[in-house]
Amino acid sequence: MSSNQHISHEFDEELEQLRNKVLKMGGLVEKQVRNAISALTRLDAIEGVEVCQNDHQVNTLEVGIDEDCVNILARRQPAASDLRMVIAVIKTITDLERIGDEAERIAKMAVRIAEEDGIFHNRYSGINHLADHVQYMVHGSLNAFTRMDVDEAIVIKKADKKVDEEYKLLMRSLITYMMEDPRTISETLDVAQAARALERIGDHAKNICEYVIYLVHGKNIRHVNMEEVEQDLLK
Amino acid sequence: MSSNQHISHEFDEELEQLRNKVLKMGGLVEKQVRNAISALTRLDAIEGVEVCQNDHQVNTLEVGIDEDCVNILARRQPAASDLRMVIAVIKTITDLERIGDEAERIAKMAVRIAEEDGIFHNRYSGINHLADHVQYMVHGSLNAFTRMDVDEAIVIKKADKKVDEEYKLLMRSLITYMMEDPRTISETLDVAQAARALERIGDHAKNICEYVIYLVHGKNIRHVNMEEVEQDLLK
Repeated sequence: MSSNQHISHEFDEELEQLRNKVLKMGGLVEKQVRNAISALTRLDAIEGVEVCQNDHQVNTLEVGIDEDCVNILARRQPAASDLRMVIAVIKTITDLERIGDEAERIAKMAVRIAEEDGIFHNRYSGINHLADHVQYMVHGSLNAFTRMDVDEAIVIKKADKKVDEEYKLLMRSLITYMMEDPRTISETLDVAQAARALERIGDHAKNICEYVIYLVHGKNIRHVNMEEVEQDLLK
Repeated sequence: MSSNQHISHEFDEELEQLRNKVLKMGGLVEKQVRNAISALTRLDAIEGVEVCQNDHQVNTLEVGIDEDCVNILARRQPAASDLRMVIAVIKTITDLERIGDEAERIAKMAVRIAEEDGIFHNRYSGINHLADHVQYMVHGSLNAFTRMDVDEAIVIKKADKKVDEEYKLLMRSLITYMMEDPRTISETLDVAQAARALERIGDHAKNICEYVIYLVHGKNIRHVNMEEVEQDLLK
């Protein structure tokens, strides 16, 4: 093996390690979201507290991966696709960390509602649909990232519209409950905050999909419409 | 001038141009926030619509600066402090773009409340305090970025606590209004959404301050407490 091949092999391994760390972080974040939703729907304060306590693990992973990226850019000075890959990682972990923050927010609401006995709990089962769609998006965005699968990234990016619609529907029904019975306002607003956090998680998953498309096609699609992107990709 | 000096001079100019573009984007985002708040407090639907229409300008600037950063990394392969500067720019413009999104959200609420005549408008003047603090944070974070002023960055980062407190106070008073008079629920929830957007803008301004500290000290402080950071900086 020549010296150049040796260096290039080392570099490939570093990038592979970087990708693996992102997937580890993604797996942890998915678990945090799942447990936060479970805490909310089962009104389990203990599980909610656990989610809050575990958030620092997500943060520690983010700081570590961020440092790895800076080191790789400084030492390897990668060009073209490798450079885009490292930048996509820097952006992806920011969104993963914020998904972790939103999971913590949901868990906090779960704890608060559980402590107030959640008397109106049976009324807002609509949040389950929203939670399912959001979890599907988080899982799909991580899949798209792992396999650098632009098709899946486009499918997941589009799914965000459905999440936004579910969120609006849920908010409308929550408003109706509050109007019918003002005693429910305080608790219902906690549910609304959890719903808002879920909607934000969908946004972050969408961002990750956009980085995948950017990474594979070298095209920043964050602010163009999807029809243009698809036409462009079909050319 | 030697060839090396010539290249280094060109590079300095490129970085200077990059900084200037970020400041231009920052100025535009500040204006969007200011106009959105003005639309909300004066219930001016026309101004609200203008803010929504101008959001694409913010997005266009973000895409352009992002491309500049990738080009600089690919062509110049900067080391150490210049590399950190470019990464800080990539992160800062993401937050600026999201501040722009939140401004648009506030403007949308302003339009909606104005169209429904805002009958309970005089009740929620508390949002003005929150809006003032948030604007102070956005302005301060951009100042800190321009001058790479760590002291100001720390001051502004700390101000986010006050924004969070103001937000909680406001939410509590909004809940009271809704409980006292359920007819106000729908409009009050729109105000609550605008308040939430303001609170998020504070978070993004805080993020920008953290990048400044990271840039100057090469230390990622996003997940350590401020006492540690200050002790560390005083060493």
